[in-house]
Formats: sequence, structure tokens, C-alpha cells
Amino acid sequence: MLIPVILAGGLGTRLWPVSRPERPKPLARLTGDLSLLQTTALRTAAIPDAGAPLIVCGESHYPLIARQLDDIGLRNYAALLEPMGRSTAPAAAAAALAVDEDDLLLILPADHLIEDTGAFVEAIRSAADAARADWLVTFGVVPDRPETGYGYIERGEPIEGLAGVYRIASFREKPDLAAARRYLNTGRHSWNSGMFLFRAGTYLEELRMLHPEIPARTEAALAAAARPGGALLDRGGILLESESFSGCPSESIDRAVMERTRRGATAPLAAGWSDVGSWYTLWELGPRDEAGNVVSGPAHLRDVTGSYVRARERPVTVIGLEGVIVVDAGNALLVAGMDHAQAVKPPPVQGRALPDETGSDQRR
Amino acid sequence: MLIPVILAGGLGTRLWPVSRPERPKPLARLTGDLSLLQTTALRTAAIPDAGAPLIVCGESHYPLIARQLDDIGLRNYAALLEPMGRSTAPAAAAAALAVDEDDLLLILPADHLIEDTGAFVEAIRSAADAARADWLVTFGVVPDRPETGYGYIERGEPIEGLAGVYRIASFREKPDLAAARRYLNTGRHSWNSGMFLFRAGTYLEELRMLHPEIPARTEAALAAAARPGGALLDRGGILLESESFSGCPSESIDRAVMERTRRGATAPLAAGWSDVGSWYTLWELGPRDEAGNVVSGPAHLRDVTGSYVRARERPVTVIGLEGVIVVDAGNALLVAGMDHAQAVKPPPVQGRALPDETGSDQRR
Repeated sequence: MLIPVILAGGLGTRLWPVSRPERPKPLARLTGDLSLLQTTALRTAAIPDAGAPLIVCGESHYPLIARQLDDIGLRNYAALLEPMGRSTAPAAAAAALAVDEDDLLLILPADHLIEDTGAFVEAIRSAADAARADWLVTFGVVPDRPETGYGYIERGEPIEGLAGVYRIASFREKPDLAAARRYLNTGRHSWNSGMFLFRAGTYLEELRMLHPEIPARTEAALAAAARPGGALLDRGGILLESESFSGCPSESIDRAVMERTRRGATAPLAAGWSDVGSWYTLWELGPRDEAGNVVSGPAHLRDVTGSYVRARERPVTVIGLEGVIVVDAGNALLVAGMDHAQAVKPPPVQGRALPDETGSDQRR
Repeated sequence: MLIPVILAGGLGTRLWPVSRPERPKPLARLTGDLSLLQTTALRTAAIPDAGAPLIVCGESHYPLIARQLDDIGLRNYAALLEPMGRSTAPAAAAAALAVDEDDLLLILPADHLIEDTGAFVEAIRSAADAARADWLVTFGVVPDRPETGYGYIERGEPIEGLAGVYRIASFREKPDLAAARRYLNTGRHSWNSGMFLFRAGTYLEELRMLHPEIPARTEAALAAAARPGGALLDRGGILLESESFSGCPSESIDRAVMERTRRGATAPLAAGWSDVGSWYTLWELGPRDEAGNVVSGPAHLRDVTGSYVRARERPVTVIGLEGVIVVDAGNALLVAGMDHAQAVKPPPVQGRALPDETGSDQRR
């Protein structure tokens, strides 16, 4: 069975002040009436023959997550609660250990947008055949611009008998603009999306070989887990045991496995993907008016162009500016230049060290 | 006796959202712990032999004004309450009619800043001699920059026997930059401050000749005035009768009298004057930090220069911008380019026609 594993971590500090420690990016309503977690969960319902999703999230976020899933009528799911964040490799390991080894795990960060669900489902179908043949498939987003903010995957030869799935030639760190432009033209480079499909057993085998401490610690944490709500397939979720899990190395799936395994494969995905990385991304996603502004809430703009203005209850007036981000989050306010969208983070007064959490912030 | 007449009108729409209809610019705390009305009232106490000030204000603002004067310990004053604004000429006429005709009226808009009280008192001393000799004296602020936002007064010959007082050669509308630069170099041009000194009787004589409807209507409004608190020299104030006063033409002292009288004179004032006209002015007044920012309240700035940031209770974070105005007024928020400071006004959602009020907004 194909089981969607939704990694509902991701701090999303660049989306402060709407993304906050207590209601981080996947749980914030950034793009409409639904949170990114909710749209991600709804998307999995479109995958034929998929099982109930398995949510992996921080313990403190689970009550809000359960409420949000309830709000969209999703009542059949399981949840693994992490006492602290340990990035994606341990989260996926816990999921793999909690299911049957022949189940296919579709790893989905909860904070991504995908416009074309049909193309998404089609890409999964191709990848599923490869996963059953023991390939660890990472989805590579077909680039439409020379993006310097993502890591890239260079694909190698097509895998025989598996349409649309390729060997991985190399992983590339975030490139400079010249390299990003080159990558755009090769037709072989794609963005490293942080979405994966593999058989639970394949992943665990590779992880045991390449980074044995992660499955060992995770298995111990799962064996000693508290089951406040009963069994795994119950909305109560199960809470990984803290001491074992805290000793688990914090490592991404890419670093722990994909960059080192010989079973790595990549499937291209052209489905209008966005990681909603910053306010700039939300401005890009629009809808923009004729002055190039994206505006929500009680806002009044005069002589303003190319800006993102997000008002809430209090009226916001913006006059005579170009390329500015204004976000009123009720109890905090952000005003930033659009060209500084990547530099947004909470001010130091709130800047206690934030816990390392599962999710796409660790993606390279 | 010299009586300071404080015109506490002035909408100050360019200082929205701190300046609001219910607490306009003179009553807002723009520059510190005191409102401009309070600093204006305190300044009059430094004038030797001056009588108790006479406040002319909108009826609805009087309770707040009385509270603010009480807060600075000023309990000896009179108040004339206008049922609606009719600009400065009728306000000054009401004051002139309420006092003895030989009293000197020092007309002071309540929304100006003056740094050098000593120079201010000195200028008044010169002007008082002229006023006793039946001159209508307007104070001309010695310019220190080629300001295009003010009207100018060109002085003529010195008046014999009256040191520091000149005939008026001409009034000049707001100039373009080239003209403003010329004016700066002549030594004969000064900014039209909206501050006057004249004998009550002189003003009324000229007004009766040049614009007889104003004193006639004002006199009727005063004769039929309600006296909720008793006599004029009582903190209750007296309320001008509405029907008579509403028929009074809305006209500034400049237009109604100064531009047409043969008794006009001007006295130069170099006392660090500012009309606190916009957020740009407040940025100029400072204090600016080494990045050229003026910041108050819980604000956090990163890569920001030349900006004015006024936070209140909620933290405001500004990142990567130059020359921006950010004003959080609690229930409304303004974000504007510094070069658009003159264009600030309330958004149209609150934009019902605002009443025409006494004060410096009508000054030319």
C-alpha cells in the first residue's frame, strides 16, 4: 500500500510574523482559507489506492494539526509525535518502522504548494513502479527559472523498464546565477523538492547501512513510545520516547541516504510546485493586480507597485513605495524590502534558539 | 495687556494615523510626552506681562484640551468654542471681540514647534511696539533652506522708530525650487508662519472695512453665545452660537486682512520654528541615529537607513529599506515612502468630508 507521510515540521522563519513557533508555516493560513498542511492532506486523497496518511509532527503542534484535519473532514489518519525535531531522516525512519516493510512511503513536506494535482499523481505512478523495484526515488521539480535558492539534482541515464525515472548523476548545492542559468538549459537538472517515494524496507536497509544510529535510536523511541490514544492508527497519535529520540542524529534524508546510496533515482515533476519559501514567493504566486501588487485584508494602496500587503483587522495604508512587503500579523508587524525577503526572520527579542524540527527547512 | 490666542484647530491630515479627527495634530503626542498644544501653552508663560491665554477650538475637542491644560497645571485660561470650523479670520475676530480693544492679541497656532523661546519672546517684544502703533504684525520665519512647502513674505522698508519691524512688500505663494532658492539668498523673504500680533481694535477696524461679514457674523455668534461655564474667563469656555457662526465666511487672516491691508508689517523670527507639517518634518527633527533613522517604541531595524519608525505596543520589524515611514497608531497603520510624506492622508474608507476647522492647515 502507498502511504502518504506528511512531515508537518518546518519552521518557516522567513514567513515570520505569520509563521510563528506555536503555529509554524505548515499550519499558518498563508495562501487562502486553508493551511498548507490542509491542502497537502487533501492532495493525498487524489492519489489512487493510497492509504490513510501518516502525519509526523512535533508533539506541541499536534492538537492544532488534529483540529485542522478535522476541519477538512479528514478523520482517518495516523500520527507520530516527535518530542523534539531531528530533521527528516529520523522522521521518515519512524514512519518506515511503523508500517509494513513492503508499504511504499510517499514523503511529503506539509508546507509545499502544488498547482497541478493530476501531474503530481502521474509522477507518483511512475515513481511507484521504481520504488517497488527497490529504488529510492526523489522528485525533481522541472525548473522554469534560474533559481539560486534551491539545491539541484542532475539526472543520469533513464532506468530501463521504468518510464520517467532516472538514475541520479549528482546533487548540486545552491548554485550561483550563472550556474543556475546553465542548469536551466541542460534539461537534466531539476530542483531538489524534498519529496520522496520508496519502499519502507528499502529505506531502512539503506539507512541501517549508511547511518545505523538513526534507525537504532528511532526504533528504540518507537518501542518505548507512549500511546496516549491507543494504537498507531488512531487519532490520538503515538509519542516517540524522548530520551532515545533525543540521541538520534539530526540529519536530512538527502544527507543521510540519498547522496550516498546506489539505489537513488529521480522522477521529474512538472506540477506547478512551490515551497512557499518566503513572502517573495507568495507575491509571485499572486494574484497580482495591474500594479503588480498582491493585497489581502483591509489595505489601501496609493502609488504602490510590485508589493505584497497583508492586512488583518486593522486597516493598513501604504503610500508611494515600490517592492515592499507589509505583513500585519495582529501582534507583530513586518515591513521589508522585497529584495530582502530571504533575510526575514523574527527579531532578536524573540530570538531564543528555536528547536530543530522536522521539515523542509533542512532541505538542501 | 498682551493676550496669547491659541488656535487649537488644524486637522494635520498629513500626520495621519496619529493625527485623527477626534484627536487632531495639536492634541496628539507627536514629539514627546507633551502635545503641541501643551508646549504652545507652556511657551506663552515665558512672555513677560502676558495675560492668561485664550484658547479657540472646536467644541468637540474642548474636553480633551481642558484635560491636557490641566495636566500641565494651566488652570487660568479662557476658551472660545466653535460649533464648526471657519478658518482663522473668524476665530481671531471672536477673540478680538471678547477682549478689550486695546489688548494686544498674539495669534498662535497650537501645532507649531519653537526651539528657542528666548528668540521668540524677543521677536514678540519688537512686534508689540508696532502693534501698539496700529500695525498688524505677521511673524516671518527666517528661512534656513529653500522650502517649497510654505508661502513667503517679502519684506519692504524698515518702519521708522520700530526696530526689527518691516513693511510688507508682497506675499508669495508656495514657490518652485528655483524661486525658493532665490528667496533664500535675498535676505528679504521669510516663511509665512501664521503667527500674528496686533491690537484687537486694529484688527477689527481693518476686518470691518475689508471683510465686514466676518465681524458681523462673529459678533452675533458671540452675543448669542451659550455660557455653559459662566463668564469668558472661566474654564467652562463659551460656545459661539451656531446659526450665526455657520454663516460666517471661512477665510484665513492672511486672505481676509493681511494681503489687503495697508497696516501690514512683518517681524523676522529666527527661533527654530517648525510647523511639524508631516512625518518628514518629524524625521528631520530627529533625533536620528547613525543610520539616519528616527525610531520610537518597540521597533527592530535591520539594513534600514533614513527612515522614521514609530511603534507603539506591538513590535515592528523593518528590514532592508531606505527612506520609509512606518507609523503604528494602534488601530491603523501607515507605511509610506519618505518622498511621499506630503501625500499622506487618511484612506478613503474613513474619508467622509472632514469639517473645515480653525488652524494652520488653512495657512498659505
